[in-house]
Formats: sequence, C-alpha cells, structure tokens
Amino acid sequence: MTIAEDARRAREASATLATATRAAKDSALHAMADALADRTVGILAANSADLDAARGAGMATALLDRLALSADRVAGMADGLRRAAALPDPVGEVVRGSTLPNGLELRQVRVPFGVVGIIYEARPNVTADAAGLCLKSGNAVLLRGSSSAARSNEAIVAVLRDAVAAAGLPADAIQMVDSASRDSVKELMRARGLVDVLIPRGGASLIRSVVEDSTVPVIETGVGNCHVYVDEAADLEMALSIVVNAKTSRPSVCNAAESLLVHSAVADAFLAMALPALRDAGVTVHGCPEVVSLGAAAGVPVLPATEEDYAAEYLSLDLSAAVVPSLPAAVAHIRRYGSGHTEAIVTGSLEAARAFTSTVDAAAVMVNASTRFTDGGEFGFGAEIGISTQKLHARGPMGLPELTSTKYVVTGSGQIR
Amino acid sequence: MTIAEDARRAREASATLATATRAAKDSALHAMADALADRTVGILAANSADLDAARGAGMATALLDRLALSADRVAGMADGLRRAAALPDPVGEVVRGSTLPNGLELRQVRVPFGVVGIIYEARPNVTADAAGLCLKSGNAVLLRGSSSAARSNEAIVAVLRDAVAAAGLPADAIQMVDSASRDSVKELMRARGLVDVLIPRGGASLIRSVVEDSTVPVIETGVGNCHVYVDEAADLEMALSIVVNAKTSRPSVCNAAESLLVHSAVADAFLAMALPALRDAGVTVHGCPEVVSLGAAAGVPVLPATEEDYAAEYLSLDLSAAVVPSLPAAVAHIRRYGSGHTEAIVTGSLEAARAFTSTVDAAAVMVNASTRFTDGGEFGFGAEIGISTQKLHARGPMGLPELTSTKYVVTGSGQIR
Repeated sequence: MTIAEDARRAREASATLATATRAAKDSALHAMADALADRTVGILAANSADLDAARGAGMATALLDRLALSADRVAGMADGLRRAAALPDPVGEVVRGSTLPNGLELRQVRVPFGVVGIIYEARPNVTADAAGLCLKSGNAVLLRGSSSAARSNEAIVAVLRDAVAAAGLPADAIQMVDSASRDSVKELMRARGLVDVLIPRGGASLIRSVVEDSTVPVIETGVGNCHVYVDEAADLEMALSIVVNAKTSRPSVCNAAESLLVHSAVADAFLAMALPALRDAGVTVHGCPEVVSLGAAAGVPVLPATEEDYAAEYLSLDLSAAVVPSLPAAVAHIRRYGSGHTEAIVTGSLEAARAFTSTVDAAAVMVNASTRFTDGGEFGFGAEIGISTQKLHARGPMGLPELTSTKYVVTGSGQIR
Repeated sequence: MTIAEDARRAREASATLATATRAAKDSALHAMADALADRTVGILAANSADLDAARGAGMATALLDRLALSADRVAGMADGLRRAAALPDPVGEVVRGSTLPNGLELRQVRVPFGVVGIIYEARPNVTADAAGLCLKSGNAVLLRGSSSAARSNEAIVAVLRDAVAAAGLPADAIQMVDSASRDSVKELMRARGLVDVLIPRGGASLIRSVVEDSTVPVIETGVGNCHVYVDEAADLEMALSIVVNAKTSRPSVCNAAESLLVHSAVADAFLAMALPALRDAGVTVHGCPEVVSLGAAAGVPVLPATEEDYAAEYLSLDLSAAVVPSLPAAVAHIRRYGSGHTEAIVTGSLEAARAFTSTVDAAAVMVNASTRFTDGGEFGFGAEIGISTQKLHARGPMGLPELTSTKYVVTGSGQIR
C-alpha cells in the first residue's frame, strides 16, 4: 500500500467530510471517545508490546514515559475528543463579506484544507488528538507516527476508524501510514496535490528535514529558544518569579525559557537573587563572563557560555544567561539566537514594553508574564494542533481555525465584466 | 554580489520598515510616484534598449507588448503607488484579542512578513506595483524579474530606491536581484531564514519549478483552468452572456474561462445559441462528441476535445466544452481537471447553487457571474499582489493583509503558570 493510495482514499473521504454537518462530526467525535473508553484494554495491550520492544532496544526512561499509556491517559484522550466536539465548528464561518458596487455578494468562507498529514514522534496520545481536531475541522488526516509507537497507534486508529464508520462518516478520514520505513515520510512529503498541508511535530531535526524536503506546504512547529529579558525598569521579585517559572515549571516543552538576558543596570542586584534561586531549583547556568563572575561572588558556580549555549534549545534544566547594556542589545541578541517562538520582557516601563513588543520578531511576545503561556489551551482556543514558528498561514498556537483555508463565494444575477 | 548578501541587507531594512509609521510609508510611496513621473524619460530609454534586444532575439509580438512601456504606462505605475498610499495600513491591525481568565491581555496583531521575494516574468510594471505593495505592508522586497526586462527593471528600481532614501526610509527595502542567471532564482529559493516568503508570478512552468524546489515558503499563484457550468435550471440568455464574457473579454488572464460544461437537459437549446455566438466572437471550441455533433447541426465546426484540452489553460480564444448528465458530474469534471482558481455555475435553482458552492473546491466560486470577477480590484481590495491558488495562508486575490503575518502580544502583571 503506497502513501499515494492512502492519500487518494483520504481525498475521497475529505470530500464527504467537507460538507458534513457539525452534528454529524460531533456525534462521530463522541463515538470515538466512547470507543476508546470501551476498548482501553486492547489499546493498553498493544502499548505494552511497544514498551517491551522499546525497553529491549534500550530506550531512555524519559522517552519510555512519553510512550507509555495507562487507563488514565486513554481516558484523557477520550476527554480530548469530547472537548473537540464541544468547540465551535470553524467550517462555514464567514470571515468577511461585502456587497460590491455592481451588486455581487462577496463572502469569504472557511473551508477545510482537505487532507492534512501529521508527522510526529513517540507520544501515542497525539494520534487521537490530531485525528479529533482534523475531523472536527472537516479534514481527512494521514498520521505518520514513530515506529516505536506503531502497535499503540494502530490500535488507537483501528478503534477510531470503527467509531467514525459506525457514526456514518468515512473511516478513511483517519488513516495511519506505514511507520516502519523512512520512505513513507518521503512519500508524504512528495504527495503534493494529494496532501494539502503537512504538520511535523517533534524534535528540531525532524522538523528541519520536513521543511527542507517537502513539496507539500508545511507548517513548521515548535522549536523554542525562548528568552526572558529583565529590563532595567523591572520589578526584580516579579522577574525572579517569571524566570524560575519559565525555566523550571516544565523544562522539556517548547515554551520553556532557555536564555536569560539582564540589563546591566540591574545585573548585580538581580543575579545576586536569581543565581542562588536557580541553583536551588536545580538549574545549571551557562553565563557570559559577567554572569560567571557574579556567580563566583554569590558562591554559585556558573559555566562559561559558548555560542552553542546561546543558540541551544536545551529542553532541560540548563539556562544560558548574558548581561546586556540596553534593551536594543537584548533585542539584537534575540534576533541573532532566537527561534521566533516566545520572547518575554519584565519591565515597569511602558516605553520599554512598547519598544520590545514592536521590535522583537516572534510568534508571541510576553510583557510581565512567563513564556509558558504560549499555548492553545492557555490562550483560550480550547485545543491546539501545535505551535507554529513560521510566518505563513498561522503563527503561534494553532487551534481549529488554523486547520482551515477559505473560499470566496460570489453570488450575482448575471454580472459580466 | 550574492543573493544571500542582498537578502541580509533586505533583512536589515525590514527591521526599520516594520516599525515605520503609516505616514512615513505613505510619504515614501508618494515620493516614489513623483520620481517615476520626473524620470520617465530615463525609464523609457532603458525600456527601448530592452525592446531592441528582444526584437533582435525574435521575441513574439504579444510578449513585446507586455515588455513595452510608454509615458502612459509609467504614469499608470505612479498612480498605482499613490493608490497604495491611500489604502489602510494592515500593520498593527488587531485581528483578535481577549482578556484571559488570569488577567493576561492577549492581542493578535498584524506584522510584516519581513522579506518578500517576487519572481516574475516580462512585465516591468510589476516591479513598481510589487515594490509599492511590499513597502506599504512593511516588507522589504527582493525583485527577480525577467532578463529580457533587466534594463527597464533596473531603471525603475534605481528611481524607487532614490525616492525611498530621500523620504528617510532604507533604500535596501527595494532591491533587484541579478536577473541574468538562473542561479539567482535557485539562491532565492534556498534563502530560508533570510527570505520569509516567495511569490512567483508568471507561467505555469515558472510556478511549478518554484513550488517544487523552494525551501522558502511559497505562495502559489495564478494558474487558472476556470470552468463555467450551465445548469439545467440556468437562464440561457444569462448563461450565454457570462460564457462569452468569461472567455473573450480578456483571454490571456488567469480568470478567463477555459472550459464550458453544459447540463444535458439544456445542451441542445444552449449550444444552438452558444456555438454560433462563440464562433462569431472568434472562439475555437474543442468539444466532447455530443458538442461536436451539435456543432455540426448548427453549422459551426467544433474540434474533438482530448484529455489535454480539458486540462488546458489555453490563455487564448480556445474553449473546451462537454455535456454532463448532472451537477455532480460537472463537479467531478472540475475536480479532475480544474486548477482550483475560479469555477462558475449559472442556475436559477437555489439548491443547485448551494450544492455547487459547497462541493467545488476552488479559491472562488461564482454563482451567476463571470469568472473574470476574481480580482483584487473587483473584490474591493484596492490592490492585488497576485491570486493565490493554494490553500495555505491566502487563497484567491491577495491584497495588503495577505502580505502580513501576525504576532501575539500578551501583557500581564507577573503571571506565572
């Protein structure tokens, strides 16, 4: 079975899905949720087999944890599908409209993309989440998960397809593509005309290879080298709380802070507080010479930062840190090393806040708030298919509307030009 | 001078442009318009040299006409710049916003892309149009025109750059890249990270090669195999007027009709009127066997249509034509051969109109109106950088907002997660 054949069947299914009513899609989502609950035992058995194989192959504990399902995690997947059912249907929304001087009625209406390809790494819960959001937005989905999760993903997809078919929508709206070979990723990336958009979710190298090799349009997601800049006009207690939260509340995610920039006017006072607090929270700081010497003065060891440190998305309890002479110098540092995900300033100065938000080029810019808030759930979107770090189509957390395109519908009474 | 160097200077300029006020941008646009008027003689001299070389190389008359400038055409370019100045500034528009439960103020704000690359064919007026729209939307632009228009384009860009600099904005916001070698197109397509989006404007082969080889995100434009479907419930006089207008009012553009589909219930009556009228308008019809035999009955020669005819974007006074047994058959034909640009139905039936508009997958769907209306000017956008036939980011005519991305600006008082 080639990807092109899968994609053609997805395309057929997408034509039905594009005109399915919200009621039909929501009842399919509820059926999918119920089926996951009913068939949890089978899904966990498949997951056990994946876990055994992964342990045998020496997979690291953190990755094993991401791969592992439990009855609670399956219930969480079912809840996610029910939440998707409760969200408004983006399809059919009139984005803008007007009556033209010649009497033509112009409407720009949201429509599904058609076929969405998702390429993702170990976590099997993405399978249900992505399938649910694509179905709700009227898209057929081709899921290409990690080979280490193949049995889990296949079990989940079999359950979802049965439920979709029982609810009267085409099962081929949800398909798993062969995860054993690298060729399936390549085929997916070359399926222009059959697949409308590819969304890679995973590590930087996966995303880079998809972005560089795909002829299918791609939405780039997720790499976050996020900075917190502590301005000279910052409330230093607030700054400390934000830095510690942004770095340590969940270091493995893309909206965690990876770098700290401190205005030289407050560097002594702030770092005298922050370096011990970060050490106590288990953070290793990689600093510029000034941070290293302030660390020595505070009795906190600071490693010297390299170029690689400033560019790193650590995804761990490491943090690069530099003292900067001015806000423009902070912005220049961010322009050089940032990944365009989330950048934060802590300041009491309106002028500094305005300068930072207007000159920093990123999907999200925070003023006096943790970088961790860049998230579809936190933003109130109700769901998230990923966080786009590109500028085309969608930037930042992507909810259901970001899984749609638009169509102009123009109605007249015989107008000619 | 490599493209990467050009792009780096464009990137520098774009940082200034991104925060330029509307007033500053509009006065630069007026300065550009005035400078084109003042320096028309020099531009026409450069254009004469291009025309001489093109004639020497045996360029076809239609292409020579597209390449040729006149005082009127230069004045038209200046008018275009003044119209761009009069349009609202898309930058800074708040697309959506809310206050989150935790008190964070969320704003999604339009921002420029940064650096836009435009790859286009012979017409030198695109140079000024594209430069003006990019500047108004806060983007720096890298223009890669046709080598046959190199002298004209360089003269125009020199005038525009001088005017931009005199108005206090960076001249490097507008740059021509080497149009002599194919390598410059390749370099532009590989300048990911330096160029934010590429917009190819031109023939199908140019667009295909950019779409397939570019690692920079691309907005695909312009190929139009547009259909007019005459439904069984059509007003046949209206249908005739729309078909003749869509085919003949300007056959060389992408929103011209290339194919006619007629419901079998009205095929005899409609084609008995339409085939002679199309012949009188100079149109050659390539028909299915039924159209060929109706042509013979009406004394109008009809060529037999091949698969290639149904797939063709003729851009000439040729038209493929087929009789279809039903509306779904018309939609299936369009799904098979259409390019997703503009599809029209002529019908008096609300049910047929709803079925057609909801199941046809195209940038624009017309009901009882000519395909020729798919146009930024006609849609009231005031300007058009191209017509997107892809689903990502922009679909259909692209105005100034389509030349922007967005940024989330989130303002708090120390919120952590």
